[in-house]
Amino acid sequence: MLLDTKLPFRYIIKDILPDAIRVFLISVVFQLIKQFYSAWLPLIPLQLPTVLGGSISLLLAFKISQSYDRWWEARKVWGSIVNESRTLVMQANSFLEADELLPTGADTRLKTLAYRQIAWCYSLGQGLRGLDPMASIANYLPEHELEYMRLHSNKPLALLTLHSIQIKSWFQAKTINSFQQVQLDSTMVRLCEAMGQGERINSTVFPSSYRLLIYLFIYLFLVTLSLGLVETIGLWEVPLLLSISITYFLLERTARYLQDPFSNRPTDTPVTAIARTVEINLKQMLRESEVPEPSVAQSYYLM
Amino acid sequence: MLLDTKLPFRYIIKDILPDAIRVFLISVVFQLIKQFYSAWLPLIPLQLPTVLGGSISLLLAFKISQSYDRWWEARKVWGSIVNESRTLVMQANSFLEADELLPTGADTRLKTLAYRQIAWCYSLGQGLRGLDPMASIANYLPEHELEYMRLHSNKPLALLTLHSIQIKSWFQAKTINSFQQVQLDSTMVRLCEAMGQGERINSTVFPSSYRLLIYLFIYLFLVTLSLGLVETIGLWEVPLLLSISITYFLLERTARYLQDPFSNRPTDTPVTAIARTVEINLKQMLRESEVPEPSVAQSYYLM
Amino acid sequence: MLLDTKLPFRYIIKDILPDAIRVFLISVVFQLIKQFYSAWLPLIPLQLPTVLGGSISLLLAFKISQSYDRWWEARKVWGSIVNESRTLVMQANSFLEADELLPTGADTRLKTLAYRQIAWCYSLGQGLRGLDPMASIANYLPEHELEYMRLHSNKPLALLTLHSIQIKSWFQAKTINSFQQVQLDSTMVRLCEAMGQGERINSTVFPSSYRLLIYLFIYLFLVTLSLGLVETIGLWEVPLLLSISITYFLLERTARYLQDPFSNRPTDTPVTAIARTVEINLKQMLRESEVPEPSVAQSYYLM
Amino acid sequence: MLLDTKLPFRYIIKDILPDAIRVFLISVVFQLIKQFYSAWLPLIPLQLPTVLGGSISLLLAFKISQSYDRWWEARKVWGSIVNESRTLVMQANSFLEADELLPTGADTRLKTLAYRQIAWCYSLGQGLRGLDPMASIANYLPEHELEYMRLHSNKPLALLTLHSIQIKSWFQAKTINSFQQVQLDSTMVRLCEAMGQGERINSTVFPSSYRLLIYLFIYLFLVTLSLGLVETIGLWEVPLLLSISITYFLLERTARYLQDPFSNRPTDTPVTAIARTVEINLKQMLRESEVPEPSVAQSYYLM
Amino acid sequence: MLLDTKLPFRYIIKDILPDAIRVFLISVVFQLIKQFYSAWLPLIPLQLPTVLGGSISLLLAFKISQSYDRWWEARKVWGSIVNESRTLVMQANSFLEADELLPTGADTRLKTLAYRQIAWCYSLGQGLRGLDPMASIANYLPEHELEYMRLHSNKPLALLTLHSIQIKSWFQAKTINSFQQVQLDSTMVRLCEAMGQGERINSTVFPSSYRLLIYLFIYLFLVTLSLGLVETIGLWEVPLLLSISITYFLLERTARYLQDPFSNRPTDTPVTAIARTVEINLKQMLRESEVPEPSVAQSYYLM
Repeated sequence: MLLDTKLPFRYIIKDILPDAIRVFLISVVFQLIKQFYSAWLPLIPLQLPTVLGGSISLLLAFKISQSYDRWWEARKVWGSIVNESRTLVMQANSFLEADELLPTGADTRLKTLAYRQIAWCYSLGQGLRGLDPMASIANYLPEHELEYMRLHSNKPLALLTLHSIQIKSWFQAKTINSFQQVQLDSTMVRLCEAMGQGERINSTVFPSSYRLLIYLFIYLFLVTLSLGLVETIGLWEVPLLLSISITYFLLERTARYLQDPFSNRPTDTPVTAIARTVEINLKQMLRESEVPEPSVAQSYYLM
Repeated sequence: MLLDTKLPFRYIIKDILPDAIRVFLISVVFQLIKQFYSAWLPLIPLQLPTVLGGSISLLLAFKISQSYDRWWEARKVWGSIVNESRTLVMQANSFLEADELLPTGADTRLKTLAYRQIAWCYSLGQGLRGLDPMASIANYLPEHELEYMRLHSNKPLALLTLHSIQIKSWFQAKTINSFQQVQLDSTMVRLCEAMGQGERINSTVFPSSYRLLIYLFIYLFLVTLSLGLVETIGLWEVPLLLSISITYFLLERTARYLQDPFSNRPTDTPVTAIARTVEINLKQMLRESEVPEPSVAQSYYLM
Repeated sequence: MLLDTKLPFRYIIKDILPDAIRVFLISVVFQLIKQFYSAWLPLIPLQLPTVLGGSISLLLAFKISQSYDRWWEARKVWGSIVNESRTLVMQANSFLEADELLPTGADTRLKTLAYRQIAWCYSLGQGLRGLDPMASIANYLPEHELEYMRLHSNKPLALLTLHSIQIKSWFQAKTINSFQQVQLDSTMVRLCEAMGQGERINSTVFPSSYRLLIYLFIYLFLVTLSLGLVETIGLWEVPLLLSISITYFLLERTARYLQDPFSNRPTDTPVTAIARTVEINLKQMLRESEVPEPSVAQSYYLM
Repeated sequence: MLLDTKLPFRYIIKDILPDAIRVFLISVVFQLIKQFYSAWLPLIPLQLPTVLGGSISLLLAFKISQSYDRWWEARKVWGSIVNESRTLVMQANSFLEADELLPTGADTRLKTLAYRQIAWCYSLGQGLRGLDPMASIANYLPEHELEYMRLHSNKPLALLTLHSIQIKSWFQAKTINSFQQVQLDSTMVRLCEAMGQGERINSTVFPSSYRLLIYLFIYLFLVTLSLGLVETIGLWEVPLLLSISITYFLLERTARYLQDPFSNRPTDTPVTAIARTVEINLKQMLRESEVPEPSVAQSYYLM
Repeated sequence: MLLDTKLPFRYIIKDILPDAIRVFLISVVFQLIKQFYSAWLPLIPLQLPTVLGGSISLLLAFKISQSYDRWWEARKVWGSIVNESRTLVMQANSFLEADELLPTGADTRLKTLAYRQIAWCYSLGQGLRGLDPMASIANYLPEHELEYMRLHSNKPLALLTLHSIQIKSWFQAKTINSFQQVQLDSTMVRLCEAMGQGERINSTVFPSSYRLLIYLFIYLFLVTLSLGLVETIGLWEVPLLLSISITYFLLERTARYLQDPFSNRPTDTPVTAIARTVEINLKQMLRESEVPEPSVAQSYYLM
């Protein structure tokens, strides 16, 4: 997630460069053509690029708006992961009758569940980003559960299955009653839903034809505008075309980054930081005194 | 689902061709008319096509946006099919008390349910696409269930009914209690809902009048623009009209394809691939070691 | 629901005619005025109709979008009616313990419920369209239930009440237990909700001021455009004004029809066809072999 | 709620007048200035008011769309009040075992509940409109409940509390079991939610800055347009400015009225008529033969 | 929340000033450049700023619309906090069997719960605004609960945990049964969800790139407009550029404030006033006669 602080210049430049160069070359070529073949070129009325500019704006508005919706939905999914993680532990805590207690006063069974839930958050976040979903979760799980996970291709789903097996064992040991089992199961249903929603956003490619069409419109706009300006403004045309088209390209680029909120880029949903928040919350609910610090932002973004 | 890779040229060309030819003919005819009857033609001010261009953009923006919503809703429906399939098996697993076990350690009853759920996903996907819903599900179901399905015109609904009969038998055999029956039934309600939502999107025709009106606007735009350009740009008019109108037609076409996400086209929701994912997930939850490979994308799309 | 087939020419003409004649007269009158009093008329710059054209487009975009939303919501409501009807019968089937069976193997009590549910669908559809809600449901209900319905002004609500009385009797006869009663009641809640949503869409008039304002804008646009074209294009003005304004009127008309999806017009939500689908599904769930054919579309629409 | 009938002329005029006069004065003043100081005035190119006109359209489109959403949400809230009122009585009817019966065959306890629910609808509607929430509900409640209400500042909340006390007493008298209590409680939760949603819409002021900014834009548009028309169209300018700006003001006004759907105006959500519908439905469910008539519309609106 | 009353002039001025000065300087500089180097400057056709104006409008429309959605979502979250607070106390009241009663007739346990709920509302509101979440809640909680809160970094979550511990103790003391525990737990789930949603809106930075791009577009617009007006309108240019660009900046500013509805500014969601409403409602449900007054608005806003 980009922070509200000043974006570094190089972050913006890096994105602009290829398109800027392409537009620069195009406008230079047009300048040369106009220099030597101006007699052959039509004088296109400027209403035409105006219409095209309107179409570009509307297409970009559509793309910006849908990509924002995807980004916001991804954030909502992770928001509900926070909520359901807290709920799961709070429910288990209020349903479990006292058994073997930890020094902190928390139930050992509760601790197993809560730690597995923390691992689930980290693992899901890593997996969505295409990183190793087993990284950095070894501390939260016993060895045989790690073993079980290795058999599954979908690691977070394996963790949910382990949750459900643990809850089943509580029910069979009559530690919780039927109602409580069903209520915990409902929380599991919502966790499973949030996981699936994250995977859906991640695996669904935004219709790529629209990007092509926006590009087509921008280049048409540049060509007609350049032809419309024949002999009016001379060399000033180059910076003019450059600055307008770059703004359009930047808009498209920004929207494209928001579209894919789990791609290990500064514009990502900050899943690691959110998982860290869950870890802090759950550990404090277990009355542990050693909790990690909240994630600290990079210079201008938070992962 | 189109992938983010380069769309092949022929895929785009195939779509463009008929409209391109039509617009080409129109602009040639106009050129000829203007050549011989220019005295009779009005000089339409270019503000008029500008207004029409704005209207086209807004209508297309509406159509693009609604078709995207349909496409995204279809994807959400299949996302929740994934979630509920996993949930169903996870619930059954945690509710069923141990009975006859498979070599993998999974319950035989659970396997029947899970396999029927896999068949349901494949069958629903095929049916929505207008293909044979009984194809490729024979391996997942016993013969008498296939027999039962043949009596029903809605095959996936028949499979859900079989689910509900199985769950009823568990309840009557006191394998699960009332709460658990009701909780499984709630998952069934959601599966039934997802199925109905898919059918709704598939059977509801997007108001076809809007397509006609967009076409009407585009042709009006072309005519007024062509008349507005009388004697200004000569033969350059042909490629100009061609390139602008083709972009509009392509936009309309792209939106139209997204509108109908279950029509056996490369732009479809990838229901077969999703059903395959469900198959892999459920089989791994049954601890089976032989699971199929995930669906591999075609050159530029995934079904 | 209009189908994707070719709309008949007369369907479109019938709608266009009154507005077309009005605009035709207006433009003829303007032509005459301009012929004789051109000296008195101001030369309005064409930027003005451009601005007005933009406003018309945006207002129409708003109206089209909201009317589409109403239409889609109506379709969703009937989609969930399909889902809940199937769910109700599936639940009752899995909750009822075997009792008196029909030759088809279905429970007699289940058949009463399912047939009443079919009647409810037909009755609700008829009622929303302002037709007789008692028509064509006599075959699905015993005489004393028809009698009971006559006392109620809201017929579908009377049928739901009969459902709830039947479910109560099952509970009191201990055929179903408390959980199952509550689960069936939840389905009833959703049916009651879907009914109310349909009534809401039907009884809520889209703010009529907006139609007036769109008309005002279109006429302002025509007047300023006509004045802006003084002496430029002569008699060509008539077909020009006619074709542009007719497209706007058609857009407004199309949106208005979608707004009211239960008004017994070809653009309606196809409630009769949907009720027929429910009838087929439920009868097949009762293992009946005689089921009606699905509704066949009229030439270009499906009711 | 404005009906689809012809809006009376005075209703529109009353709204237009102040703004119309203001714009009339402004354009007259401008005419005078232009008459005497035309040499000092700049000739503003008409592209400028075009841009401003576009901005006005977009801002108005935003405001119209959001105000429509508020209005529609208010209507949905009252739609769900209808649904939940029916559900509450239907549930209580199916849960209560026969006790003391009224001559109509309905249960006395059910009648108390249903009448209180009717009172709740009327009281909530009155309260939202800023009218006396105790008016016209005396007939539906016993004296001690009216007494209890007087102690509460939020009258509808007091009625819900009375509902919950009555349901508690049923549970304690073992008339209903735990499941049924919880199911009724879920309906109470939804009623409480609908009430809160109505209050939220009512108490949340639409960001007032936007109105100021729209006004600012309209006046800027008028000024630049008037300056752009220097010497072109003479006195024709006055009706021209008047007609365009009035349309914008009317749009803003219409949107503003929809924004506040509980303000005792003809554009209100028809809460009294809806409460009347609930009364009729519930009384018929109690098998009462004397039910009031549905609310009749005023000449052009329904409250 | 800004009220519908007249916004004070200084509130608007304070916001406008820095941008106004900047634009003023820019236009003065341009005037000077044009005075001395007019021969070197291109005459940019005015269609170009028109296109840019359209893009600015669309980007602003996007930003206004999304920021409004955030603001409205924040308001909805607090609306559901009101609903769930009332629901929680109403449920506890109807589930708890009479025990030790307060002089007002309310249950002591209920009072503890209700007061903690009031504290939760105040604490959550303070925390979201970045103020001390422990301020002003000492009166509602016993000392040992305040002590417990100090160990947690997320104070409202600590209060919810205390709720869940209290409900667990009721269940273990058999004061409430399993169903009732689960129903109260469902309310807790929704409270936890509302809290998480508020935190999500608060911690998610609106993509900051869009602000930069809007600014870029506005400055491009100013430059091209100024160049397009070379020698047309002289010094009139300064107020013209000033008034148009200020309106754009004001729009952007207004949207930015709505985006962050918990930032201790007059445009905030009025969380303190809402928490006060909850306090009044809950205390009256406890039959307390001493309730605080509703929050009174500041001159033009309500916190």
